[in-house]
Amino acid sequence: MSEYDATLFANEVFYRAFADRDFAAMEEIWSSGATVVCIHPGWTALVGYTEVMASWRRILANRNAPAIACHQAEAFVYGEVAFVVCYEQIDDNFLVATNIFRRENGRWKMVHHQAGPSAPPPSDDDEDSDEPAPRPN
Amino acid sequence: MSEYDATLFANEVFYRAFADRDFAAMEEIWSSGATVVCIHPGWTALVGYTEVMASWRRILANRNAPAIACHQAEAFVYGEVAFVVCYEQIDDNFLVATNIFRRENGRWKMVHHQAGPSAPPPSDDDEDSDEPAPRPN
Repeated sequence: MSEYDATLFANEVFYRAFADRDFAAMEEIWSSGATVVCIHPGWTALVGYTEVMASWRRILANRNAPAIACHQAEAFVYGEVAFVVCYEQIDDNFLVATNIFRRENGRWKMVHHQAGPSAPPPSDDDEDSDEPAPRPN
Repeated sequence: MSEYDATLFANEVFYRAFADRDFAAMEEIWSSGATVVCIHPGWTALVGYTEVMASWRRILANRNAPAIACHQAEAFVYGEVAFVVCYEQIDDNFLVATNIFRRENGRWKMVHHQAGPSAPPPSDDDEDSDEPAPRPN
């Protein structure tokens, strides 16, 4: 498996843990050696494994939460660090996410996650889609 | 200068270019060798130098835009790659940003930027601030 594919696989593991409300798998995919950072949509940044895992424990404990699905993941690998950009679909709403991974003992571990509101992702046959709204500044 | 400080300096260069509407400086801080990605708030991801720079050219051309200021930048350096998490203030509104840099010929160059809505950043003496709203899923 190429490092590109391995990074996308790690990204899939993250979303599988998220979708399955599998806290043990969520703990496992995050780095326990690095200072991890997590930015949930609309939140401020959480820094450190304990704080980040506390947030996931609370999120994954919500059994009535809607399903999450990951779309159009693309990886950018730079040696021992890689990041993945993908879209998260929750019902009919979309978020766009940046997920950063670091290779630790041969395995890609998540060190950072940010998700924020997005327009629906462009489909592959939709190159001429409407232009997004201008940045407010 | 430590690599930590050098990364924060590169982050400052980015926000200085942004605040000054300095397109040449904005072009200069982004990597022209890597596949760059930029996620403006509410937009989908822009991929590639040409598309990303076109977005900045348009944003920086808006002379009536409010000022932007960067707060509480924190860097996480992993060898040749680093990321910075910081808050962007535009008038009374806050965004939280992830900025990824790669070392190219001894200089830190931006390869990724994502900004999304945030609560106001916690102040240093505000450890007991209200808990952020729960993630909607």
